[in-house]
Amino acid sequence: MAEQGTRRRARGGGGAARRAERTAVKVEAARYIERNIPNLEILNDEALEIIEANAETVLAEIGVNFVENPEALRRWREAGAEVEGERVRIPRGLARELCKTAPANYTQHARNPERSVEIGGGNLVLAPVYGPPFVRGHRSGRRYATIDDFRDFVRLGQMSKWLHHSGGTVCEPTDIPVNKRHLDMLLAHMTLSDKPFMGSVTEPSRARDSVEMCEILFGKDFVRDNTVMTSLVNINSPLTFDATMMGALEVYAAANQACILSPFIVGGAMAPTTVAGTLTQVTAEVLAGVAYSQLIRPGAPVIAGAFVTSIDMNSGAPTFGTPEASQITYGMGQIVRRLGLPYRSAGAFCGSKLPDAQAGYESANSLNMGLLAGVNFMLHACGWLEGGLVASFEKFVMDADQLGVLHQIAKGIDLSENGQAMDAIREVGPGGHYLGCAHTQANFQSAFWRSQVLDYKPFEQWFEEGARDTATLAAARVEKMLADYQQPPLDPAVDEALTAYVAERKASMSDAIG
Amino acid sequence: MAEQGTRRRARGGGGAARRAERTAVKVEAARYIERNIPNLEILNDEALEIIEANAETVLAEIGVNFVENPEALRRWREAGAEVEGERVRIPRGLARELCKTAPANYTQHARNPERSVEIGGGNLVLAPVYGPPFVRGHRSGRRYATIDDFRDFVRLGQMSKWLHHSGGTVCEPTDIPVNKRHLDMLLAHMTLSDKPFMGSVTEPSRARDSVEMCEILFGKDFVRDNTVMTSLVNINSPLTFDATMMGALEVYAAANQACILSPFIVGGAMAPTTVAGTLTQVTAEVLAGVAYSQLIRPGAPVIAGAFVTSIDMNSGAPTFGTPEASQITYGMGQIVRRLGLPYRSAGAFCGSKLPDAQAGYESANSLNMGLLAGVNFMLHACGWLEGGLVASFEKFVMDADQLGVLHQIAKGIDLSENGQAMDAIREVGPGGHYLGCAHTQANFQSAFWRSQVLDYKPFEQWFEEGARDTATLAAARVEKMLADYQQPPLDPAVDEALTAYVAERKASMSDAIG
Repeated sequence: MAEQGTRRRARGGGGAARRAERTAVKVEAARYIERNIPNLEILNDEALEIIEANAETVLAEIGVNFVENPEALRRWREAGAEVEGERVRIPRGLARELCKTAPANYTQHARNPERSVEIGGGNLVLAPVYGPPFVRGHRSGRRYATIDDFRDFVRLGQMSKWLHHSGGTVCEPTDIPVNKRHLDMLLAHMTLSDKPFMGSVTEPSRARDSVEMCEILFGKDFVRDNTVMTSLVNINSPLTFDATMMGALEVYAAANQACILSPFIVGGAMAPTTVAGTLTQVTAEVLAGVAYSQLIRPGAPVIAGAFVTSIDMNSGAPTFGTPEASQITYGMGQIVRRLGLPYRSAGAFCGSKLPDAQAGYESANSLNMGLLAGVNFMLHACGWLEGGLVASFEKFVMDADQLGVLHQIAKGIDLSENGQAMDAIREVGPGGHYLGCAHTQANFQSAFWRSQVLDYKPFEQWFEEGARDTATLAAARVEKMLADYQQPPLDPAVDEALTAYVAERKASMSDAIG
Repeated sequence: MAEQGTRRRARGGGGAARRAERTAVKVEAARYIERNIPNLEILNDEALEIIEANAETVLAEIGVNFVENPEALRRWREAGAEVEGERVRIPRGLARELCKTAPANYTQHARNPERSVEIGGGNLVLAPVYGPPFVRGHRSGRRYATIDDFRDFVRLGQMSKWLHHSGGTVCEPTDIPVNKRHLDMLLAHMTLSDKPFMGSVTEPSRARDSVEMCEILFGKDFVRDNTVMTSLVNINSPLTFDATMMGALEVYAAANQACILSPFIVGGAMAPTTVAGTLTQVTAEVLAGVAYSQLIRPGAPVIAGAFVTSIDMNSGAPTFGTPEASQITYGMGQIVRRLGLPYRSAGAFCGSKLPDAQAGYESANSLNMGLLAGVNFMLHACGWLEGGLVASFEKFVMDADQLGVLHQIAKGIDLSENGQAMDAIREVGPGGHYLGCAHTQANFQSAFWRSQVLDYKPFEQWFEEGARDTATLAAARVEKMLADYQQPPLDPAVDEALTAYVAERKASMSDAIG
């Protein structure tokens, strides 16, 4: 033993110390947020009733299109809608009535039961960025995303304490053919993370692959009886439901797997320029989408979503972290709660090209609004850059760190005897200080939320250590988290079966695009 | 004329074009925010009653110290408090009763009546950073502040559309002797800006100088009958009122000029580590301070303030934009509204050394919380860097730009017929787009708030233009605003009289420090 100790020191105490430290890394994962604070409600009852009545008018008089989907048209006709070509006009009250069978909340199971999440009610579940074709890294700059990048993002997600969900397409692995990507992405979420994840929606067959892989991971019986995926089904605003997305919804709803039904709106392009007009259209779209999910299978879990941004009148570019988006997010929260459905909105949105101050302002605006708007499922809660074109490694860890702020605010204020701290005030008295008092000693370690990324050092120390900005500090954090990453244990037989499934499915496909 | 024109062109057409452009600059100034949205209330009635009762216990049993101020002790004794040495114990209910004569809102007049502000109610008045001994500029880096810096900040404030107030010590002009600084600072606010400003509090005599300079600027009669300054009187937490600050308060309250009575608290050092404990102490401090202002002159306008931050347990440094500070700011807003007083809190707080992502996250956290906490007067709303040690030119314009977000959110949601936009939804229909529709054409220009600093360009254009980060863009904005600056007109006789007053007062003083 002594000899071994000596040998280790001889090899270099620093290295051994580092190894020991690494072994000691504890992968922490916070429970999803259970709010103990109220939501901000910016619309009064009269305003809500106007918007809801207008949405019913939109559905009844203008209607929605279900494109290239005769089966959907048949379902709507049978349910009592007026179908003309691909246009579906839904009589007042019908969509709202159909929505009633959708559950107010549901459990999405993770393979590690401790990571399962309750979606709905006062809860908030945080998931990473979804969809960027590019990545940006401190050293490598901006480039097309690969499956290696994808895996690194899944690893970062697994290591991020305040992130509850592994997400879906955290970036597009553009080095894998389009028709095979979903298999590699799912395999990464299933093997590199033990947090809940999302299924593929880019084709009905890929949704079926997602269900089948879940059957391997969780067992067939478990998947039949439980929700193990929450997948993102976009509505094509204005008022259009395309066959691909509806095809995925049909597969998932039939399998009792959850979908987010969410318009993707750039205000002024896919919706009116006004907040009330956008709320009206989004309400109509969500009512029609959720109602349709219930036509497929009453009781299928769904989330009503609103992805909204505004447009820059000079450049035509979408803008993020803007006040109009905040107003829509607050208002839509109220409307969705009145529908008795879980709500998806917000994210660490920004238009910035870099993880700089713009990214910080815009993302914090969006994150705070998401917490206070009563959002239940927040996609894009970390890693989003450049209007969603880029997944940024540094932004991922910066945002993921800030998600801790939301957890702490949501706790509400402790009014226990210890929280009231009257003993401390008595002990210290006028002109004293609290640093040494008994109450401070007892509470100091857990009293204040602390960032793991941002700089709290005195100027002189910060300057001597290289005067690093946040992006540089975050780059170091990315490297440390990837170095510390620990793969969660998985039954080798399951691992093997998943890998075999992916190989088999890939072998059956051409490398065709699409 | 033609010759002159030719000569100008000969000197350089660019210069003439720039001059013409400069002449065309319109200095815009937004009206203070009148909220059309509710506040976020995170404490229920029971919680509020516990904290208020605890605060009364603190005042009655522990008491507060009025240091080196026999006159204050006499006033308190006469009012019914129990005085023992410098300790003042205030019977339950007395402080709250005394606070009742303080007005719920007041007008602070600016020399340009269009810039006067209403402080209280649902309003929010935004003022710049206060107190930093250092400045930071994009090119010059971090250095001690000078009076030239001070003047540039006042000019930037005058040119900042969303800033309602010129502030006070926007930075410490360290090149001027301490006993003379207030004169140069006041002269700058009075001559370079036509927005409302703050008076000096660092000595009672300087408060008197501030009043006398206002008498020159506004006229003696006007100052006697109206409030023309709102000045910052800090309480020395815990529970201590020093003679200097109280001396300034005594001068201002007697002259019917407004003061902010505000503890400056680093949680864990000057207050307990818990939110409820801090709320209790701050409530006691504010009750005692406001009550004292009313003992000087019943009806004197005051603002109840809370400057709160937490402490980093690793470095001992104060931290900003943290969740505990948000909770205190929300809670204190409720308590101050129940007292029927205007409320000062929040700001663009950050601990960052640079105007980087950390600055963005932390400042946006604080600004959003300030809006939703019902703050009436927000000091430090722009320019704050490095825990308040530094006034940053770039951060000033970045924050001042973000203040536009607060204005737009506060407007609430337009539910007029135009706001409902049903015509637009009908015109566009499923699958269409809104860019060309009549409603969009009619509303496009004013539909969305737009940043004047942040980047909304497509990646390629942004890259070709130098891939500038936010701080670099802000530096260009600083230069443009200072180049575009227009001094607001002032009666030359008043200008002369102010200058003469400053010269005379300075001549009567030594260059002593203190």
